[in-house]
Amino acid sequence: MSSRHLHLNVNLLHSGVYASAWRLPDSDPRACFDAGHYVRVARIAERGKLDAIFLADTPAVTDRIDYRPFQSMEPTIVLATVAASTSHIGLIATASTTYNEPYNIARRFATLDLASGGRAGWNAVTTADAASSRNFGLPGVLEHKARYDRAKEFAEIVHALWDSWEDDAFVGDKATARFVDTSKVHPIAHRGPYYSVAGPLNVPRSPQGRPVTVQAGGSNDGRDLAAAQAEAVFTLAQTIDEGAAYARDLRTRAAAYSRSGESIVILPGLATVIGSTEAEAKRRQDELWELVPIEYSLARLASTLQIDPAQLELDKPLPDPLPLPANANHTMFQGTVNLARRGNLTVRQLLRALGGGVGHRIIVGTPEHIADDIEAWFRAGAADGFNLMPDVLPTGLEVFVDTVVPILQKRGLFRKDYSGSTLRDHFGLPRPPSRFATQVAAAASA
Amino acid sequence: MSSRHLHLNVNLLHSGVYASAWRLPDSDPRACFDAGHYVRVARIAERGKLDAIFLADTPAVTDRIDYRPFQSMEPTIVLATVAASTSHIGLIATASTTYNEPYNIARRFATLDLASGGRAGWNAVTTADAASSRNFGLPGVLEHKARYDRAKEFAEIVHALWDSWEDDAFVGDKATARFVDTSKVHPIAHRGPYYSVAGPLNVPRSPQGRPVTVQAGGSNDGRDLAAAQAEAVFTLAQTIDEGAAYARDLRTRAAAYSRSGESIVILPGLATVIGSTEAEAKRRQDELWELVPIEYSLARLASTLQIDPAQLELDKPLPDPLPLPANANHTMFQGTVNLARRGNLTVRQLLRALGGGVGHRIIVGTPEHIADDIEAWFRAGAADGFNLMPDVLPTGLEVFVDTVVPILQKRGLFRKDYSGSTLRDHFGLPRPPSRFATQVAAAASA
Repeated sequence: MSSRHLHLNVNLLHSGVYASAWRLPDSDPRACFDAGHYVRVARIAERGKLDAIFLADTPAVTDRIDYRPFQSMEPTIVLATVAASTSHIGLIATASTTYNEPYNIARRFATLDLASGGRAGWNAVTTADAASSRNFGLPGVLEHKARYDRAKEFAEIVHALWDSWEDDAFVGDKATARFVDTSKVHPIAHRGPYYSVAGPLNVPRSPQGRPVTVQAGGSNDGRDLAAAQAEAVFTLAQTIDEGAAYARDLRTRAAAYSRSGESIVILPGLATVIGSTEAEAKRRQDELWELVPIEYSLARLASTLQIDPAQLELDKPLPDPLPLPANANHTMFQGTVNLARRGNLTVRQLLRALGGGVGHRIIVGTPEHIADDIEAWFRAGAADGFNLMPDVLPTGLEVFVDTVVPILQKRGLFRKDYSGSTLRDHFGLPRPPSRFATQVAAAASA
Repeated sequence: MSSRHLHLNVNLLHSGVYASAWRLPDSDPRACFDAGHYVRVARIAERGKLDAIFLADTPAVTDRIDYRPFQSMEPTIVLATVAASTSHIGLIATASTTYNEPYNIARRFATLDLASGGRAGWNAVTTADAASSRNFGLPGVLEHKARYDRAKEFAEIVHALWDSWEDDAFVGDKATARFVDTSKVHPIAHRGPYYSVAGPLNVPRSPQGRPVTVQAGGSNDGRDLAAAQAEAVFTLAQTIDEGAAYARDLRTRAAAYSRSGESIVILPGLATVIGSTEAEAKRRQDELWELVPIEYSLARLASTLQIDPAQLELDKPLPDPLPLPANANHTMFQGTVNLARRGNLTVRQLLRALGGGVGHRIIVGTPEHIADDIEAWFRAGAADGFNLMPDVLPTGLEVFVDTVVPILQKRGLFRKDYSGSTLRDHFGLPRPPSRFATQVAAAASA
């Protein structure tokens, strides 16, 4: 295996990334309400030696649930269930910095990290949609920059709380009745523009020190936040050039924060439709596409662009100009517009290229073809790996694990077995020391 | 079995209710950081056909962790892990109405309810301690009445969100591409003095309709809240008279809210120290008491009373008068003071009677003696059952399940097996219809 390692997560989007995945004969329509479904998919991912499963999240009904499954169950609860039935696979859950308190998030993920033996990751998002804001007493979405300023302070607090116990604070000496050495448990005494949090956390550190911080920022503010704080990034790129440009930009920004940009694991989304022949793969894609109601695709595209569906004409290109809405999901908006403009696509062609709502890059082909593509992106520095979005779950992941993974392993690109047990081990990330332990050590040597 | 059924929860206080439990030779000092410990205890409870496990919670370091284990791991994450390894036992977690958002709590417990097949319960608390308030940006604890006003509105919102999906809203018809009948998913459009929440929840109802609501209010405001909203109550009573008076009061208050007070399941805390002879039980109690450092007991008593430990003299009675502090835990304060005054105890005697920090009633004796006591309280209407607090875990629960439960079963007081699979089934509570379904039905028949 080369010194750079490929990383693969599965983005566990309930029935699969296609809006029509639940309609296939083998699919269980109730999958998105069934923790057992998540456990089954996670076990397949673990069999394939993948790095982690990843759960997106929105605290509201935002998609068109009359047409399709959606993110329903709260991700940390689902992952705690998965943790009990797996031993190695990493567990990344999304949680909003806008609609939670930092102490609660720090504690919940620290608990998941302990319960899973050091396999937790937190995907910090700022949550842009209006439906969520109305579930939390806000008349509208916070302005973009304010969301990101809050998010930055929020994550700083969470990280400080995760450091508030030094690694050797627990004593547990029955003879002397000393349970914890409280001189090694530190208040964080945070006072900032948005939050005041005294600390310490009431949860000690886990085998990996603290959960891995993941982000998905595509906007200027989002990239800056990722550069400052993220250890892994979930991004959107439709071409190798886009992916490579994003990676260069992020690593350069990281340097401005005195961080090694090389250590950030960059994972574009990749939707997969696999067949044993090219023709079989295309037939599967056709079947999935035809089962997506056109009204749904249109509604989803209009929502991404934040325009009235009536503005979209199926056999014409997108309206031009199309200004970036103030509170759009920047990554998704820009990716969609770029895709349309680059191919000079009509709305109908665009809908199909988007898989009727997939949004991320879709690859359709044989296992060999998909392995070639993954290798090309990896070698070009356009990705450290991928956040895989199988067309249908669990079947689309099963075929990936059984056919694509062995090729990647044979080429020396992907691990044949786990070499460690924590998510940091899988991602090749260092175990961060507690900042408080460092201060004490520095003070002692000064 | 009589028409009234005995109910038994285990209050899963990490290593056991005694502060010294972790120091016994068989105890694992790391139990409070180990989800596996909670799973083991839950399985024993399930073997004993108990109703539920109950997890207390505080989002801060409040106890003297230099001396003893404490509530560390976040309860809903722990219970999700337990859910995956059990099939019948109810799962009750505590969560604060002061330091959470109602949408998040509704969703997290609804998810736990789905993931466990309808076994979740929410113990709603207002969280009085100052350390918690400092972790959430507040300079001090909210005033008592304000906490309870917020709590009432909070729980009303949570209940409405749990009703927002009618039971048959999910369709999942592959042929017509209809996933959810959105005419059966309702916004709640709540606008109140403290919260605005649009809804609907993004989680459908569970096999038991919605999680069971539990409360533990001992103050006037707390009892009113319990009377208005609680389906089960965790309370503190040192004597049958105290227990019976509490039960009468709560059931009378419930009537004022047009509720049947009889249907509220009242469960006083009961700490158990069991021996095969009276002498053996007393020896175990002595051993546990002697392993509690006296400085810890004093600090804990001073904290309950919210006074300076220097005001407590070991061989004198409690200071008199002892006014109720504004933000005390009323139940615990009053229970402690009553215990001291009733027995005219010195501080040292009181500390011992409190088990060095147990707080709740302690019973020490043979299985027969404990079964007699439980039966007497049950028949006198002083309790519908108990929130058991074994001295040491898992051993104290194991001996209860193996020796006391069979006696209660033989007397026809306690179930020999589960007759249902949900927590509502165990508690004998009805499955509440969605309020929105009722409105539609009422409108149709009008």
